[in-house]
Amino acid sequence: MTVTEAAAWLKGRDRYLILTHKRPDGDTVGCAAALCRGLRGLGKTAHICPGVGATHLFTPYLEGLLAPEGYAPDTVVSVDIAARSLFTDAGRPWLERGIDLAIDHHPSQEFFAAETCLDASRAACGEIVYHILKELGCIDRETALPLYVAVSTDCGCFQYGNTTAHTHRVAAALMDTGLDVFPLNKRHFRTKSWARLQVERLIVERMHRYEGGRIAAAPVSLSLMEEAGATEEDMEDIAAFLGQIEGVETSVTLRELEDGACKISLRTSGGLSATKVCALLGGGGHAAAAGCTVPGPLEEAETAILAAIMQVESDG
Amino acid sequence: MTVTEAAAWLKGRDRYLILTHKRPDGDTVGCAAALCRGLRGLGKTAHICPGVGATHLFTPYLEGLLAPEGYAPDTVVSVDIAARSLFTDAGRPWLERGIDLAIDHHPSQEFFAAETCLDASRAACGEIVYHILKELGCIDRETALPLYVAVSTDCGCFQYGNTTAHTHRVAAALMDTGLDVFPLNKRHFRTKSWARLQVERLIVERMHRYEGGRIAAAPVSLSLMEEAGATEEDMEDIAAFLGQIEGVETSVTLRELEDGACKISLRTSGGLSATKVCALLGGGGHAAAAGCTVPGPLEEAETAILAAIMQVESDG
Repeated sequence: MTVTEAAAWLKGRDRYLILTHKRPDGDTVGCAAALCRGLRGLGKTAHICPGVGATHLFTPYLEGLLAPEGYAPDTVVSVDIAARSLFTDAGRPWLERGIDLAIDHHPSQEFFAAETCLDASRAACGEIVYHILKELGCIDRETALPLYVAVSTDCGCFQYGNTTAHTHRVAAALMDTGLDVFPLNKRHFRTKSWARLQVERLIVERMHRYEGGRIAAAPVSLSLMEEAGATEEDMEDIAAFLGQIEGVETSVTLRELEDGACKISLRTSGGLSATKVCALLGGGGHAAAAGCTVPGPLEEAETAILAAIMQVESDG
Repeated sequence: MTVTEAAAWLKGRDRYLILTHKRPDGDTVGCAAALCRGLRGLGKTAHICPGVGATHLFTPYLEGLLAPEGYAPDTVVSVDIAARSLFTDAGRPWLERGIDLAIDHHPSQEFFAAETCLDASRAACGEIVYHILKELGCIDRETALPLYVAVSTDCGCFQYGNTTAHTHRVAAALMDTGLDVFPLNKRHFRTKSWARLQVERLIVERMHRYEGGRIAAAPVSLSLMEEAGATEEDMEDIAAFLGQIEGVETSVTLRELEDGACKISLRTSGGLSATKVCALLGGGGHAAAAGCTVPGPLEEAETAILAAIMQVESDG
């Protein structure tokens, strides 16, 4: 379904329930909030499925939009959900009932819905929802705010490799509504919790560098987490932290788990296949970002992943 | 002069020398490189005035563009230079000879040139140079790269409050040339030197928080710099570091100077006038970012600036 078809389809229906994905990010939350506000603006009844599980960073965008208990929708729409396994606990019964429309930008989309509006060339699902709402005449400051959250968070504020000219054009159109993006940028890209800052300090203090600094490894023990006063919410994208160090091509972040095992995240930028390295330890992922879980303790896990890196490097 | 007039004016001349400002940033270097490449693409002779003084971050963009010794230009153009005091040592003789055209975006522009193309609504001078080069038919991958450096660095990769819809539209147009912005973003926004990382670690370790974390102060001693192995190049925008901490409204960065005095940078986001605070200690600046230099040692300077903050806060 094209965005024009999706817009017409949505216009002809009512009583919407909008579903977000598990471990929600700015894109799924922002898309759901924008779509909900836009449809309401057209005089429709629209709610977001409760049980989103958003962190404090994204919770405010859902205010006043969650479905009341017992709400009986006629039209169920998912946003930014690629796979059946990514439905929330509250969303899963709706998957069984049947999703009417899936709006998504993931190439891995499973086509679980009756209708799908997919554009895998977009950095954010928010870019697609923008076009649908534009067709419906619903782009105003109310919808622009969550759409900007969706678009900007999924491309790291226009820094990631998925950013396209289109991403910038959508941002420009959203700002044309008079939206002040500065407080949003400050909140999402220029704010760190005290605990996160301590985590980063301790990582810098305790990390190891190999091969003249080309490889970096950070063991993150449970005691480090405790010393920093950090929770999972403070660890968002921590695997990317080492990759910003000048000269680092391969970075390894090792998290000690409660059961004593270690979760390893590997990031590569120098051409080394992260998938191949992690496959040696029973894991998988993408060419530049992969992971695996190995038995602890941290020191042994670090030795194992370094050996795997060396092996794949020497295999060429 | 409008951008259309500036384009026509440039088209009718030849043998250009392009001047950049002292302590060059990405905007002045990027504008100079793009203008130089664009004019050369039109078959003109164009060079950038040597002695730019660029850091290793920006030096590559100047490669092959600096004027040979003894170059005698007919047309002298300054980019991103707001004031006479901001000319480089090598540029100052040209200021005395007379600048033919100044292209700029600073509201504080001193109108030192015979002609001025100024648009103070732009986040970056690069947005203005983009339009001039577009009028001249010179937007291609060669000019798009330095223009993207100019635009993106001056708005903190679209995060700062100066970012407008226009800024995004220029970025989109530059990406339309096929420019791959990811390596540029990684280089300018997602890379930290090892020494910088140590500076940040030591700041977090040694900073002080007051008023429940609403005020933060970081004393940066010469010995801290030495311990981190840091040079001035590693300290770029360090005054913004504390401001990213959740809950911090007022942040103070104190740098110990070689002569024992202390340079204080004050940043405020909670409505407190940084100008008023620094004025109490003989300094000045903007409402949200001001500075002053006071006698040392660091501890006394910190006490003095905290007292000044408290005084201005209690004055309302």
